[in-house]
Amino acid sequence: MSDKKLYFVSDYMEGAHPNILKRLCETNYEHTEGYGLDRYSASAVERIREACGCQGAEVKLLVGGTQTNAVVIDAILRSYQGVIAPDSGHIAIHEAGAIERGGHKVLAIPSVQGKINAAQVENYVRDFQKDENHDHIVMPGMVYISQPTEFGTIYSRKELEELSEVCHRYHLPLYVDGARLAYALASKENDITLPDLASLCDVFYIGGTKCGALFGEAVVIPDPGLIPHFFPLIKQHGALLAKGRILGIQFDELFKDDLYRKIGESAIGYALRIKECLKEQGFSLYYDSPTNQILFIVNEEQMEQISRFAEYSFMEKYDENHVVIRFATSWATREEDVEMLIHHLSTMKKNMDQGKDEIGEEMS
Amino acid sequence: MSDKKLYFVSDYMEGAHPNILKRLCETNYEHTEGYGLDRYSASAVERIREACGCQGAEVKLLVGGTQTNAVVIDAILRSYQGVIAPDSGHIAIHEAGAIERGGHKVLAIPSVQGKINAAQVENYVRDFQKDENHDHIVMPGMVYISQPTEFGTIYSRKELEELSEVCHRYHLPLYVDGARLAYALASKENDITLPDLASLCDVFYIGGTKCGALFGEAVVIPDPGLIPHFFPLIKQHGALLAKGRILGIQFDELFKDDLYRKIGESAIGYALRIKECLKEQGFSLYYDSPTNQILFIVNEEQMEQISRFAEYSFMEKYDENHVVIRFATSWATREEDVEMLIHHLSTMKKNMDQGKDEIGEEMS
Amino acid sequence: MSDKKLYFVSDYMEGAHPNILKRLCETNYEHTEGYGLDRYSASAVERIREACGCQGAEVKLLVGGTQTNAVVIDAILRSYQGVIAPDSGHIAIHEAGAIERGGHKVLAIPSVQGKINAAQVENYVRDFQKDENHDHIVMPGMVYISQPTEFGTIYSRKELEELSEVCHRYHLPLYVDGARLAYALASKENDITLPDLASLCDVFYIGGTKCGALFGEAVVIPDPGLIPHFFPLIKQHGALLAKGRILGIQFDELFKDDLYRKIGESAIGYALRIKECLKEQGFSLYYDSPTNQILFIVNEEQMEQISRFAEYSFMEKYDENHVVIRFATSWATREEDVEMLIHHLSTMKKNMDQGKDEIGEEMS
Amino acid sequence: MSDKKLYFVSDYMEGAHPNILKRLCETNYEHTEGYGLDRYSASAVERIREACGCQGAEVKLLVGGTQTNAVVIDAILRSYQGVIAPDSGHIAIHEAGAIERGGHKVLAIPSVQGKINAAQVENYVRDFQKDENHDHIVMPGMVYISQPTEFGTIYSRKELEELSEVCHRYHLPLYVDGARLAYALASKENDITLPDLASLCDVFYIGGTKCGALFGEAVVIPDPGLIPHFFPLIKQHGALLAKGRILGIQFDELFKDDLYRKIGESAIGYALRIKECLKEQGFSLYYDSPTNQILFIVNEEQMEQISRFAEYSFMEKYDENHVVIRFATSWATREEDVEMLIHHLSTMKKNMDQGKDEIGEEMS
Repeated sequence: MSDKKLYFVSDYMEGAHPNILKRLCETNYEHTEGYGLDRYSASAVERIREACGCQGAEVKLLVGGTQTNAVVIDAILRSYQGVIAPDSGHIAIHEAGAIERGGHKVLAIPSVQGKINAAQVENYVRDFQKDENHDHIVMPGMVYISQPTEFGTIYSRKELEELSEVCHRYHLPLYVDGARLAYALASKENDITLPDLASLCDVFYIGGTKCGALFGEAVVIPDPGLIPHFFPLIKQHGALLAKGRILGIQFDELFKDDLYRKIGESAIGYALRIKECLKEQGFSLYYDSPTNQILFIVNEEQMEQISRFAEYSFMEKYDENHVVIRFATSWATREEDVEMLIHHLSTMKKNMDQGKDEIGEEMS
Repeated sequence: MSDKKLYFVSDYMEGAHPNILKRLCETNYEHTEGYGLDRYSASAVERIREACGCQGAEVKLLVGGTQTNAVVIDAILRSYQGVIAPDSGHIAIHEAGAIERGGHKVLAIPSVQGKINAAQVENYVRDFQKDENHDHIVMPGMVYISQPTEFGTIYSRKELEELSEVCHRYHLPLYVDGARLAYALASKENDITLPDLASLCDVFYIGGTKCGALFGEAVVIPDPGLIPHFFPLIKQHGALLAKGRILGIQFDELFKDDLYRKIGESAIGYALRIKECLKEQGFSLYYDSPTNQILFIVNEEQMEQISRFAEYSFMEKYDENHVVIRFATSWATREEDVEMLIHHLSTMKKNMDQGKDEIGEEMS
Repeated sequence: MSDKKLYFVSDYMEGAHPNILKRLCETNYEHTEGYGLDRYSASAVERIREACGCQGAEVKLLVGGTQTNAVVIDAILRSYQGVIAPDSGHIAIHEAGAIERGGHKVLAIPSVQGKINAAQVENYVRDFQKDENHDHIVMPGMVYISQPTEFGTIYSRKELEELSEVCHRYHLPLYVDGARLAYALASKENDITLPDLASLCDVFYIGGTKCGALFGEAVVIPDPGLIPHFFPLIKQHGALLAKGRILGIQFDELFKDDLYRKIGESAIGYALRIKECLKEQGFSLYYDSPTNQILFIVNEEQMEQISRFAEYSFMEKYDENHVVIRFATSWATREEDVEMLIHHLSTMKKNMDQGKDEIGEEMS
Repeated sequence: MSDKKLYFVSDYMEGAHPNILKRLCETNYEHTEGYGLDRYSASAVERIREACGCQGAEVKLLVGGTQTNAVVIDAILRSYQGVIAPDSGHIAIHEAGAIERGGHKVLAIPSVQGKINAAQVENYVRDFQKDENHDHIVMPGMVYISQPTEFGTIYSRKELEELSEVCHRYHLPLYVDGARLAYALASKENDITLPDLASLCDVFYIGGTKCGALFGEAVVIPDPGLIPHFFPLIKQHGALLAKGRILGIQFDELFKDDLYRKIGESAIGYALRIKECLKEQGFSLYYDSPTNQILFIVNEEQMEQISRFAEYSFMEKYDENHVVIRFATSWATREEDVEMLIHHLSTMKKNMDQGKDEIGEEMS
């Protein structure tokens, strides 16, 4: 039955939005320049600039998230500087030391549901400045956050404005990792637009890999003077795709006819329905995530029951008897799978209430 | 007319072999594990092991050539070691310092048509060992060559055996950059097979980007004990593709039904025909390349004439009045374009012999 | 009066033990080989091996502590590995990112009074191994501790044995930073000898800078196979002193006639007397340090009083009304200064008890 | 007899100028701040600024030459940049990859007797700029030369002005390695003063190790804005001496009462006398070095004869039957040794002319 299980493990487990594949096929025999100098990359850059309301922005298309973080952070920091980040940030944990490989310390500060706030950054910097030994300590040189965070939460515009204000006051470039940005932009609770990001951040990237592309992340630098010679830096990191057109075509499609927005909205819609169902069935949400990741708490029996009909991600232990698991929706989530998931969850609850265990039978 | 010009600029200017696109489309909605742990990657690895006659080999699929070189060289060398390479080698010139970014010096030795020989390596190592200051000098820690070279030339099996023998005698892992390996394997003059590479080298990579894939290079480590923990190393370099299936599918196709061989043979066949035509028309070859890159010498008038009907690569100045230019064929070269190129070259020669300049008219 | 103030700021504020200066003067015109190949370095190495009961040990003399930590950690770790360390460890805070410059993350774990224990290390490693994403996380590759710690506390032999056992079970080299080792060895509470260090650790260094030398740290590698080619590695880090004799002479003196032990004992004796006096006068010790650093708690008035007759180090805020300050003794501490300090502390207490403020008058 | 041999091997084989040792002894028990914040360092910096005619210069005292080169080059370059240097430059050969460890390629250009010229630099940069692939090539980011060079030759002011002009035209900081600067300054042929260096270079260092100090190199940055935050950068490189006073005292002495000049002049005077003698005795100079290193050509018999009474450095093979060897003088060279060397060289010549071999007897 494993093949037929409903699949809500994560948002990068399938290929790409069909529009992208279609365009790759149509353009396959065209000859283009390499290394991102092709017409598709140019068009994608133009569309992204427009979406960000920032005609002067430098936009570069890279392959993956860890790579993008390493390249951008390396480009901004001087060797003796580190990057302030939430202790749950991707760069602080899950990049196998890519930032340290570039010679930089990740200055982790405690996060709440993946977020840090302006006061924390200000305190960190002031403590650094006041420390009489600060010349012996890694100097904070920039700030990294994720939107949405690794927990699926989002910053409000007010929170981002405050962070931006502190960063600029202390001359710390603010960098936003938007690996799942489509899902933040489409969140009902979101009030940060792409133009807001362009005006409040110094660099951010628009995630492709988890938002409908085969791969690809679009780095946006609203003030292109921030990082001179970004091209050779990308090349030196092994992050320059020879056939840049493949990236160009993908982002050109994602930003044509509002596709990036639509991808986000569809995933968010499904996530909301699943969340509602979970609440109705009496599950406790780990927190009320506004994006495409739904983290909730189950006991062992529930987990076992759910595994019969759906695949999910294990997140962490909650207490002696409970764990946190995650359903994620994406551009690839299909309505019928969501319906079926809701059906199974309801049935499972009913059966458990009745002390029966009929799900297995029903599904076999 | 620019759009209609015949296009022989290089071998990575189009998309991918149609089989690859077809398979990407067919599998698009399947759910797979990320990071190369999917079934397509497993199948590709199996096919590559079989093609190399090396069931125990570790095979990893990376995205690009510069990236692959940086990852492999970093994995093998200790910090105080450098990599011996031809002075024309890709790592010595065109990787924007990716090897130095990893902390390693490229120990360039003079090459002839892109190649170095066993005696040169032995002399380098012996000079190092005899130097009483050798503890103050970068220690040679491995050897890098390309097959085919950046000039399109190839090593013979005898040459590779000699290099291999010296390398192993001095405990220097031998690494072969096979960015264009398909075209070496298919060369009429080639006598090195994939199993030969697996038995003579310590690491090599099978190029995808320039041989029919959208992107991708397959690293083969015949003795997997050579590089423990290669996975986190790849991740740390930002070289781990989230949707590893995209790489898996591509190499699975390239090594299914001998496609990699066929791609090479087709390109070589066209290159031979173009080379023959050039010789017949009295052009001097820069040297008699056995692979898909044809370098030849033209004067200014010839170059101008050729630009009317074909796009090519400029290589270097030859003398006051001549330059070296290159035609390259690839998996994407079409028969009709080769015919047309040969037709134009013949016509051009005839006209120039007659002191006329009718090509422009004919083509307009 | 500033010049006449009693000086207990730290243990590296003066020159060197007079024996060292004497020997430097006596040997000044001798000709020796450079880079540590001289006879004085050879003699120092021999004496250190003997003191450690480890004739086969590799011993290298470096210039400073941060440098030594960076060189040793770089030598041991592979690029994708990090170093487990107490969160209060020198490498975690006060080396300006020297470890990260080498590409390695400091895996900080919570410390108590500067120490971590075997269970913490074991838990860290097991959590890492159990994490299904561990290939995306920095791999623990070694363990760093300080003896004495940055707080002046020391590990007991039992604690070190436990750490050593866990480290070896998980194949993690154990490295001990002995910047102030003389003061640990001489502590009344210490039960770890140099031979113990040689048998329980994989690398440790014997501090010179803070223990009587102008500068210099002696790295001891009991099993010299652990770090092959350590010499070029040192050179590459810019850590190889051209006139290695200067290091050789210093350590030769420090390990002649038990000088290193005597230096430690003298400082510890003075520290104990000061500690006793502080206790008698009713000061609260921050904790009961067994080495040459005495941390105690004062209110604002006390601090102001003390600054009239002595210089000390400010450590940290204790609470709203109190701070922690430090007196440190060293090889350079003179008996008369200790007597005078005790006298002033007693007088100060008496006066404060009487509500008077006569210290200023007395001293002016 | 080995002990009694005349010793002209190099200029860093003894301790330090006696003034330095004297001052170290006198100040030994003074308490000073650490890390170069002491009064002696301040005084040394002031004297160096004055000697350079550059009151605003930033001056930092580091420990060794390789270290200084690595720190300065790292401080100036961005990650994708390399340093242009003579192929015989110290950083290109004898620093065990310290520059590459910092991530930078040494862009070696052919040198003549250790020197490169302005036209070479200009051509290198223009070739880079004209190369249509220059974004894939390491960008030249600064220029490194040595004064005197590793061969003992010196740049003239005209040559330096030309280099400086080209460098500034192309925005390449010019850095001069002055490991043996005292001997260039004192050369009869020299017309470059310290103020000239301060006005023509962007950074240079005044060598201490080879010019009378126990160790130490003084980095001078005429425009302190060039390298912000140089202090933490030095610390991060492990190049910050805890007891900075040791460096301060040494450079304070070297720049007091013109000692640095006197040290140079004395060595140059002796070198000239030895050179004259060699010429008179019919030896061929490898070239006519204007500084303290005398390279000359000997056959096997001559080399054997010389080894009986003097120690020298072997430089390189000259032809089948001859080698190049070197005598070096220094601050530590004594008049009587020079006299004795001249005596032996003359006697040796006489005896060889007479076909006799009496040197051994005479000396035994």
